[in-house]
Amino acid sequence: MSSASSFPDSVVSSQPETLTVMGGGLVGALAALYLARRNYPVEVYERRADPRQTGTTEGRSINLALSDRGWRALEGVGIGEQVRSVAIPMYQRVMHDQQGKLTYQPYGKENQAIYSVSRNGLNRVLLDLAEANPHISLAFNQQCQVVDLRNRQLVLRDTTTGQEQVRSFRHLFGADGAYSAVRSVLQKTDRFDYSQHYLNYGYKELTIEAGPGGAWQIEKNALHIWPRGQYMMIALPNLDGSFNCTLFFPYEGPQSFTALQTGPQVRAFFAEVFADALPLMSDLEEDFFRNPTSSLVTIRCFPWSLADEVLLLGDASHAIVPFYGQGMNAGFEDCTVLDELLDQHGTDWQTVFQEFQRQRKPNADAMADLAVYNFEEMRDRVADPRFLLRKKIESRISAQYPDQWMPLYTQVTFSHTPYAEAWANGQRQDQIMQRLMPHIQSEADYDLPTVQALVQQEMNNLANSQT
Amino acid sequence: MSSASSFPDSVVSSQPETLTVMGGGLVGALAALYLARRNYPVEVYERRADPRQTGTTEGRSINLALSDRGWRALEGVGIGEQVRSVAIPMYQRVMHDQQGKLTYQPYGKENQAIYSVSRNGLNRVLLDLAEANPHISLAFNQQCQVVDLRNRQLVLRDTTTGQEQVRSFRHLFGADGAYSAVRSVLQKTDRFDYSQHYLNYGYKELTIEAGPGGAWQIEKNALHIWPRGQYMMIALPNLDGSFNCTLFFPYEGPQSFTALQTGPQVRAFFAEVFADALPLMSDLEEDFFRNPTSSLVTIRCFPWSLADEVLLLGDASHAIVPFYGQGMNAGFEDCTVLDELLDQHGTDWQTVFQEFQRQRKPNADAMADLAVYNFEEMRDRVADPRFLLRKKIESRISAQYPDQWMPLYTQVTFSHTPYAEAWANGQRQDQIMQRLMPHIQSEADYDLPTVQALVQQEMNNLANSQT
Repeated sequence: MSSASSFPDSVVSSQPETLTVMGGGLVGALAALYLARRNYPVEVYERRADPRQTGTTEGRSINLALSDRGWRALEGVGIGEQVRSVAIPMYQRVMHDQQGKLTYQPYGKENQAIYSVSRNGLNRVLLDLAEANPHISLAFNQQCQVVDLRNRQLVLRDTTTGQEQVRSFRHLFGADGAYSAVRSVLQKTDRFDYSQHYLNYGYKELTIEAGPGGAWQIEKNALHIWPRGQYMMIALPNLDGSFNCTLFFPYEGPQSFTALQTGPQVRAFFAEVFADALPLMSDLEEDFFRNPTSSLVTIRCFPWSLADEVLLLGDASHAIVPFYGQGMNAGFEDCTVLDELLDQHGTDWQTVFQEFQRQRKPNADAMADLAVYNFEEMRDRVADPRFLLRKKIESRISAQYPDQWMPLYTQVTFSHTPYAEAWANGQRQDQIMQRLMPHIQSEADYDLPTVQALVQQEMNNLANSQT
Repeated sequence: MSSASSFPDSVVSSQPETLTVMGGGLVGALAALYLARRNYPVEVYERRADPRQTGTTEGRSINLALSDRGWRALEGVGIGEQVRSVAIPMYQRVMHDQQGKLTYQPYGKENQAIYSVSRNGLNRVLLDLAEANPHISLAFNQQCQVVDLRNRQLVLRDTTTGQEQVRSFRHLFGADGAYSAVRSVLQKTDRFDYSQHYLNYGYKELTIEAGPGGAWQIEKNALHIWPRGQYMMIALPNLDGSFNCTLFFPYEGPQSFTALQTGPQVRAFFAEVFADALPLMSDLEEDFFRNPTSSLVTIRCFPWSLADEVLLLGDASHAIVPFYGQGMNAGFEDCTVLDELLDQHGTDWQTVFQEFQRQRKPNADAMADLAVYNFEEMRDRVADPRFLLRKKIESRISAQYPDQWMPLYTQVTFSHTPYAEAWANGQRQDQIMQRLMPHIQSEADYDLPTVQALVQQEMNNLANSQT
């Protein structure tokens, strides 16, 4: 109500501290929005150019699967509906075998779906919202050169001009991804546990074109998998009728990126193993040799914070492989949890940071394990009729004992159960299924009195172990 | 025979390439000596000051236990005898219980010993030898600022003058320790696996003084252990009659570094738990608060090499915790293995580097596991009479079946069996001992016919499993 004074004094001292977010990607932008809701001035620095101007994604995956944890975090800043309007629900997995025969596996109950969204599109929505927020300042092309923990200063280099600026910080959020500059400084502090581990697989983005008039040439509302044992291709739908395909493939070996060196080799290989997809991929050779082969890393570290000064968020503290579609969702859930802790502990940043890492670290570790586990499931087990039968039996158990049995995939994807708890439940369920399945040869066997008795006994044991 | 030409030409092109060793510590200096024996010009750069002038050890352990792998490597450059003359053999562990009662456990057979040597003294011997070698140039106070892999250049900063120099390299050996600058550059290359993991324990160096006339106040030819379950102190003899003690102690908790904040607290704690040592440690409080609390890290990474350009050696690729006394020995064994591979593959550096990491990586991983395993043994199990009985029974088995049973400690310490093989053998032996020990209540029981029959049966199974 008063006009700005040229010498604010007591007003300044009661103003909230400025918060600094390194990274304006999905998690950085969303974290900034959550922090700004509490009236903190938030400075966001992003190494890359503004994606709203360039449209580049720098070799990252082009689309992503949003599920319940992600939706909750987006709804918390009021953009659930807006994002949902440009997302494509995928209700099931569709498996393509080598002869082109299709098998279907619903992800959950009716209407339960994961949603294909464009990484770039989602980032734009978040950045537009951040830019419109008077508490948030955004700066792009800002490469973090130095994080001086002692003096709480950053040195940022403008990659377009080469100019460096020094910025002070009080509370720094490192949301700068798997190759985080903030984390690399923490890594040099004493007693900082850290690991980066790569799979022997790389991935490459390819395309299934839209059909005439923007039609989807394969089932639109599904995630497609071509499981081939030691490798696989997947495809997610885009709004324009195309599909973004990803080939997950060994770096070395008889069937590997190294083995495919020419266009004809690539085409012959696809004709043999992805025969039904090949006619839909007219740019195959060009895509294959133009697009990078990207690596698949799991990053773990601890601690995630330093006093009340620094907190790592998202991939910076827990980058995972993409096979459960939970990387972004886990990073967005970080924002939800941070927001809850700020509700509880207010400006006691040290407690917020400590409590955040205490709660989230076991969940991030479990999710990292789950993501590798799901790779094996997708590339290999989903091609096995026994595995699909087992999934059907699990659905039957879940329908019969809804309070006691939520399938692992459902817990991870369609619930807010902490990942570590979901993983522990899933391992118990796995042991039960290993005991039951030798007695079951078809879905109808589930209703046999002998099988029902076994199931009942397992459920009794499970109930007893949980009380 | 000819005088130096001012324009050497054909002579130059046939001269061996210059090799660059980053690090002039124990492994770097020894590696330089091995490489120089093949007439390569070797440049060694060390970040620290020349230890022959300063005598500092920068918070590293003061003495080390040399065993067979280390001796072989020293003998390979002809300084086994010289080092042995200033080393103190330790034939046994002496355990001190809380009441000061002593228990003895020989390390091996008669005359088998590990040797207490001064880190600084050994480093001096190696540096003197390197300095006297016309093929080797040594430079100290050279901090590695940049390793430019693409252009094969180093930027080195002289820490005394602040001046930087740029040096080209062709083959670079990173022997620059657990916090290796060379490795930190490899860490940023794609698909480089890396982990640093810290124990929740720190260590602090303390001193038991020499007695009158330089006498050793406790048994000289032994490694002393004060095992206390969750923590321990050890002592290694020095030539001057003193012992270098190391307290391995939790960072946090009721009995921890955090809990001991004042001199009287330290003294009271030692009076309670290390009562027999306390009277021999007159500088205890001063040592305790002056000496740093150092952390205990395990570092693993892979690959260890980059093409024919870079190879990591010693702690740079496989830093381990000190509890098996094998850190230096493993690094020295690296030099032996490298030398063998140079015999086999000559100047085919890429093959040498590939083969080196292929052979050594599983052994380094096994040694890292063994070192953590031995911490549990030293701080906890050696205080258990059942454990000591088991060790005696193992000795009896080993005496009865010398071709089939070499105790794990003997394989690691007094043999050149690859660490991974030793560890696998040790795990098989452990399973056998778990089956035998319930039948054995005293050493005499070993001769009971029932026990002898069981042992004979286990040995038959072991022989069958190994053929």
